[in-house]
Amino acid sequence: MTFIEKLRARWRSANSLVCVGLDPDPMRFPSPFPRTAASILDFNRAIIDATHDLVCAYKPQIAHFSAVSAEDQLEGTIALIKTRCPDIPIILDAKRGDIGSTARNYAVEAFERYGADAVTVNPYLGRDAAAPFLEYEDRGVILLCRTSNPGGADIQDLMIDGRPLYERVARMIATQWNGAGNCLLVMGATWPAQMAAVRAIVGDMPFLVPGVGAQGADVEALVRAGRTADGTGMIINSSRGILYAGGGDDFAEAARREASRLRDRINQFRDCPPPP
Amino acid sequence: MTFIEKLRARWRSANSLVCVGLDPDPMRFPSPFPRTAASILDFNRAIIDATHDLVCAYKPQIAHFSAVSAEDQLEGTIALIKTRCPDIPIILDAKRGDIGSTARNYAVEAFERYGADAVTVNPYLGRDAAAPFLEYEDRGVILLCRTSNPGGADIQDLMIDGRPLYERVARMIATQWNGAGNCLLVMGATWPAQMAAVRAIVGDMPFLVPGVGAQGADVEALVRAGRTADGTGMIINSSRGILYAGGGDDFAEAARREASRLRDRINQFRDCPPPP
Repeated sequence: MTFIEKLRARWRSANSLVCVGLDPDPMRFPSPFPRTAASILDFNRAIIDATHDLVCAYKPQIAHFSAVSAEDQLEGTIALIKTRCPDIPIILDAKRGDIGSTARNYAVEAFERYGADAVTVNPYLGRDAAAPFLEYEDRGVILLCRTSNPGGADIQDLMIDGRPLYERVARMIATQWNGAGNCLLVMGATWPAQMAAVRAIVGDMPFLVPGVGAQGADVEALVRAGRTADGTGMIINSSRGILYAGGGDDFAEAARREASRLRDRINQFRDCPPPP
Repeated sequence: MTFIEKLRARWRSANSLVCVGLDPDPMRFPSPFPRTAASILDFNRAIIDATHDLVCAYKPQIAHFSAVSAEDQLEGTIALIKTRCPDIPIILDAKRGDIGSTARNYAVEAFERYGADAVTVNPYLGRDAAAPFLEYEDRGVILLCRTSNPGGADIQDLMIDGRPLYERVARMIATQWNGAGNCLLVMGATWPAQMAAVRAIVGDMPFLVPGVGAQGADVEALVRAGRTADGTGMIINSSRGILYAGGGDDFAEAARREASRLRDRINQFRDCPPPP
């Protein structure tokens, strides 16, 4: 089963487009946990226990582990998800990108060492740099297109022949990089008009959508702009807004409540018509 | 002492623009070493012992460690360089890039966990994404501009107002990102004409230049194109061409011979006039 198939199956079975981003920050851990890197796996386990029936994917963000030398906690987190809920796809958010043998090593890191179902990749180095990831045809390769931060405009919004760069990137990926059908795009939740334009370019290619929750995007606008005709096509990620919804003993219930609220809010708009 | 000061001092004292890229590949280790990740530190030590007086920098490439779960060997390699040759700057080649708290974690990984003097960063996410790295004013932030691979053209050569994107990126970094004077650019050795154009845009900003050695660029052309008026301005990297110059017991002598040959070849052209 490929990543895309696993994702589509999970969209249906969980009736959810919500992805929980696992961005563990020991300094923000609620009171039950010692505020150390050694608590990461236990914290993640509690979050996964509280949210697993509500999500279409989990997205561990690797910098939050590597900054505190917690590679073992990342391995443990992924192993836990695979054991506890094997039908939930795992996206390793690493935004890797390099050339030749180095890119191959990054692909090994993501897909073999950590066993992720999909990985985020930076497209700036071009197609030959993405190729070692794309060759894992059963995995997902999620390429940055228009990121959610304001500074994303610096390069991504530069105009090429009258259209923004990110549209060119989207078209290039859809027509030239996606031979195995395993490409996805990162489209920031904060830019619904841009998302609608890219949706028109790439057909049903799924989007990973960061920027709801802590970054506070408009859920109605983004779902209407980004969904596909069947009301799916999006992996809508919230990290801190769910992980740290509660600061005390109630953190797991608070996380579940936020994940459930986000799922329901998204589902309200999945069968709305797209904006005119 | 900042990274740039350390680099300038080292260019002078070693009379060398050569950087040895530490891309350990256990499957290519010469006969004295077991072909396992546990041999990486010993292999790197032998290379460093054989080349340290010939180089202006070392550049460990992190994917070669993380693909084989060898973070400890990377920490050991960096600690070894700092003890054995503390005046040689260390560039962590990681090509990281993300936003907000994630970018801060990547900066912590590079500068605090590993203690690198400089790190390579992907500029696609824009200035606010680079800011957490730039705020370490004593460290170097080496931003991808025109990479050495053919596919680099896919995005980097797109034309913006009649000029290629990488020139726009170079100008943006030089004029808007470099407030602390700690930016450098990656300029592939395979594109001397492009390098000359970027040199004209960014003044004396140093270049990290991959693509000599295994990728086989023309040393004379690239040095004439990229050097600054004082005959420096470049960190010219060779990885596999030095590390695996010899496959048997002579690997260290072979590595030394290749590093020395590259240094001498570069130095021949450091005081040549730039191309007309």
